[in-house]
Amino acid sequence: MNKDIPIFSLQRLPVYLNYLRTLPEEEGNYYISSGAIAQALRLGEVLVRKDLAYTSCTGRPKVGYVRKELIAALEEFLCINNKKSAIIVGAGGLGRALLGYGGFTHYGIEIDAAFDSDQNKIGTYVADKPIYGMDKLNEVCKEASVTLAIIAVPASAAQGIAEKLVAAGIKAILNFAPVQLTVDEKIKVINMDVAANLAVLASML
Amino acid sequence: MNKDIPIFSLQRLPVYLNYLRTLPEEEGNYYISSGAIAQALRLGEVLVRKDLAYTSCTGRPKVGYVRKELIAALEEFLCINNKKSAIIVGAGGLGRALLGYGGFTHYGIEIDAAFDSDQNKIGTYVADKPIYGMDKLNEVCKEASVTLAIIAVPASAAQGIAEKLVAAGIKAILNFAPVQLTVDEKIKVINMDVAANLAVLASML
Repeated sequence: MNKDIPIFSLQRLPVYLNYLRTLPEEEGNYYISSGAIAQALRLGEVLVRKDLAYTSCTGRPKVGYVRKELIAALEEFLCINNKKSAIIVGAGGLGRALLGYGGFTHYGIEIDAAFDSDQNKIGTYVADKPIYGMDKLNEVCKEASVTLAIIAVPASAAQGIAEKLVAAGIKAILNFAPVQLTVDEKIKVINMDVAANLAVLASML
Repeated sequence: MNKDIPIFSLQRLPVYLNYLRTLPEEEGNYYISSGAIAQALRLGEVLVRKDLAYTSCTGRPKVGYVRKELIAALEEFLCINNKKSAIIVGAGGLGRALLGYGGFTHYGIEIDAAFDSDQNKIGTYVADKPIYGMDKLNEVCKEASVTLAIIAVPASAAQGIAEKLVAAGIKAILNFAPVQLTVDEKIKVINMDVAANLAVLASML
């Protein structure tokens, strides 16, 4: 567990990783400076250096970081080589879109299954992933030692689902429902409120 | 435009608003203290007070804020009573889920339409919202003075789409593609990288 890194620094690490991965593997990109990263990502250079200092990769004066080493250090810090399973609760539009999304594998995460209370969805598959009834939640999570979950249900159902997830052994929740979850403080939660973020953007204009 | 508020404070304002809106309208909730808000949202009390100080609502010593006044001040700050239109590019699983999502109206935002390059989708409707071809982008955005857009296309297409959006007059982009967009710095961008956030959660365990 990355205890000592502030959450905002931690949330930027995948951004650095993504950016470094997209750079062409030319000789000229062998080294990359914190200044170049900062400019590309529109962040302050000091901030970038501070963030990257949490990883095991150290930059060299004047030239910066060895790109491959920095990628490896970020992958190590984010435990990407450590395969993990996740589940989704809610197989509506968003849940189904996430079931079909391939991007999780870039971080070593596999979505195992989704859960829903709709009898018409239970027993069907989306992108080869099964949709189970909520009564299977405990069994599936415990069998595969799943600790990661995505909540993709309406706001009114989210708190009840969160409690069921915690009871099933889930330790971290990515919450798309526009509601603050009340769970034990050991449970990690990141909120992805789409409408709120669009409202924030609108207020910046 | 809210120039002087840090982005992280701005991003918490909808969280406060959401929370205050969910409180029952009982007499006992007429006043709410920064401490109570902080505890419910698991934030520091000083942070909450600093964030809320950006709005026009001032708390009273010992008792806190008048709940209704604070809601109104947050709505005003977030320009929620000012109706705005947004469009979505990409009518795949995620884009369609967002077209059908009703939560934007809580922030005064209406999704007008989606755009896609797939001939089978063009001319169809999702949740009564039309899906147009990309050739209609300029016309639709300019006619309705749309300045907000959501990118819900694969990473490989996102940069090209961002450039088309800017050319069509879009000023702010909510980007779901896991890629850093290179656009003029006057254009506001918030990234919603689902996989990266799930990876961050996993690394916290």
